[in-house]
Amino acid sequence: MTVNEKALKLHEEWQGKIETVSKCPIKTREDLALAYTPGVAEPCKVIADNKDAIYTYTSKANTVAVVSDGSAVLGLGNIGAYAAMPVMEGKAALFKEFGNVNAVPICLDTQDTEEIIETVIRIAPAFGGINLEDISAPRCFEIESRLKEVLDIPVFHDDQHGTAIVVLAGIINGLRLTGKKKEECQVVVNGAGSAGIAITRLLLNYGFKHVTMCDRFGIVSENYPDLNWMQKEMLNYTNLENKEGTLADALNGADIFVGVSAPGIVSAEMVASMNKDAIMFAMANPVPEIMPDIARAAGARVVGTGRSDFPNQINNVTAFPGIFKGALEGRARQITEDMKLAAATALAGLVTDEELSEDFIMPDPFDPRIVDVVAKAVKDHIEN
Amino acid sequence: MTVNEKALKLHEEWQGKIETVSKCPIKTREDLALAYTPGVAEPCKVIADNKDAIYTYTSKANTVAVVSDGSAVLGLGNIGAYAAMPVMEGKAALFKEFGNVNAVPICLDTQDTEEIIETVIRIAPAFGGINLEDISAPRCFEIESRLKEVLDIPVFHDDQHGTAIVVLAGIINGLRLTGKKKEECQVVVNGAGSAGIAITRLLLNYGFKHVTMCDRFGIVSENYPDLNWMQKEMLNYTNLENKEGTLADALNGADIFVGVSAPGIVSAEMVASMNKDAIMFAMANPVPEIMPDIARAAGARVVGTGRSDFPNQINNVTAFPGIFKGALEGRARQITEDMKLAAATALAGLVTDEELSEDFIMPDPFDPRIVDVVAKAVKDHIEN
Repeated sequence: MTVNEKALKLHEEWQGKIETVSKCPIKTREDLALAYTPGVAEPCKVIADNKDAIYTYTSKANTVAVVSDGSAVLGLGNIGAYAAMPVMEGKAALFKEFGNVNAVPICLDTQDTEEIIETVIRIAPAFGGINLEDISAPRCFEIESRLKEVLDIPVFHDDQHGTAIVVLAGIINGLRLTGKKKEECQVVVNGAGSAGIAITRLLLNYGFKHVTMCDRFGIVSENYPDLNWMQKEMLNYTNLENKEGTLADALNGADIFVGVSAPGIVSAEMVASMNKDAIMFAMANPVPEIMPDIARAAGARVVGTGRSDFPNQINNVTAFPGIFKGALEGRARQITEDMKLAAATALAGLVTDEELSEDFIMPDPFDPRIVDVVAKAVKDHIEN
Repeated sequence: MTVNEKALKLHEEWQGKIETVSKCPIKTREDLALAYTPGVAEPCKVIADNKDAIYTYTSKANTVAVVSDGSAVLGLGNIGAYAAMPVMEGKAALFKEFGNVNAVPICLDTQDTEEIIETVIRIAPAFGGINLEDISAPRCFEIESRLKEVLDIPVFHDDQHGTAIVVLAGIINGLRLTGKKKEECQVVVNGAGSAGIAITRLLLNYGFKHVTMCDRFGIVSENYPDLNWMQKEMLNYTNLENKEGTLADALNGADIFVGVSAPGIVSAEMVASMNKDAIMFAMANPVPEIMPDIARAAGARVVGTGRSDFPNQINNVTAFPGIFKGALEGRARQITEDMKLAAATALAGLVTDEELSEDFIMPDPFDPRIVDVVAKAVKDHIEN
């Protein structure tokens, strides 16, 4: 049986990867009187007087909504709210297993930006945070930024920021290993969607100066066809010389490649044209932009992918559980750039100098220290 | 420490009465590949091809949303979405403990009828049913009926129908005990809000012919001040002689009293004016319309209340877990009047002829047979 066949069979057996469980015993009339009527009226009254007490008396303090409209699911594209449900349930399971954070899948039967925004605002009272998931670009940018303006709980689009944090952690360790300086590196990010843009922004905030974005028609420049508003905005910070050309042109003389794009589009020749000690994260799933052995043979020093069967897996699960754990514990109102940079730095720091090598630049996703280290970094940078 | 003080302390210790728990192990890379990427893509693809498969592969099949706007909470009134959260969490805990049904509290930060309707429609994909809770009348009638029209999953306002089912079960056994005939009984329902109207409708559907509703100004008739549209509609089926007068006038010569109203508003004299073998459900909380000992002394034969410290407790927990369990298992698209009547009859039937007495007309809420008996009655009457 293949992994896929086994996965389908298991999903049928599970019939749901998460469940809700009562934390209070309800075995006697007295239990009922304490957890429900008449006793439940007491916390209600306290919260009615002081809205903030909802964090003391309810699960809001440790519960996240995993919200998707199913418009950009994994490698599957726009499959809609119903078909997205197994992914959102999986994410909810990971939240609990890795972060001990409760998470509820909310699959929205609308793909209208305004409707998504108003719906999330309306359901927010029960949740301590909103994890947006698999919402297509550029809608995801507006949805997230508008929700951040209105809501007093953290809103975090994991496809953007979770990915960006983990990539930055990998790059930080790539710099440690190669001795390259961030200010001097030429960085190429291939894929100008939600993940690519978020990665680019975080790299710039970390201190990289030279980032060029590419997409299917090559280097993103002022003349690139059909730029969306966010891609246009990114031209204020990237490709400042307004270069034009192909991905191959962009990689010529580059130090770092980050791919969140399509299988097999980077050739050995392109890698050979990069600078010495090139760092490459080829994260297209399931088939990377270039296979690690080919990239290494062509001269790349560090190669990471999204896959667990190669070294240096870039996996969001090393970020989002700790991010939300820290944000919830510290009651952050926002997840800021500083918190993301701190999380990436902390994650990278889990790899010791002795451990650090071409084949070990990222901590193992199951390293039990990760969640608390990331959570602490986030908590230490809350600015409410 | 009083029950209320203890309840408040416990709510602080619990910090949430429910939690989400993973049903699938995620301890190894292989687990991750099966529950999340890449394996999760398989059930997604199947659901994308056939929306109905969401019931096979996800928790939708056994998960209910407990939705409130906090506009009519218990005895607390309009305390809003935040303060309603402990009640919705409690309800979610009861769903799991009594019915083994997963339930997610959704507290809506709006009290606009249209906004509530559209929000519930948008979040429906993840849920197999919608339990509306503590939404004020007459908005609750429109919200429920509009949602039932649009959604293909059961929508059930428990304050209405759960209460009505349990009251009808009690009345069925009151008739068994007293030998009264439903067609001949004069019934007075005091409280023309959501519960009173739902009780009245279910009693009429069960076969009662003579029901008079009262509210704070006495008998509800065509000249009653400020009737809402639903109260007006109820005049087509109730008080057909268009009587006017006080609650005392209504009770004179009545056989059955159902109170979902206010403490202490029924006097011993009123009870004495009722017919022989009167059946009374005085369900105002926490203080009933009349105390059971006074009612009994004044001549009532059967007296039930909402309280667990008197005999004959009328408690919704004997209905809603089984109602949803049956509806979900049988994949009902609606919870119909027939299903409610069957549930009430089944619930009443759990009390044997030997057990039936003035002090035992309702099964104990913790009777472990209840949930399956109610669920079976519901399943047997699905008409999809």
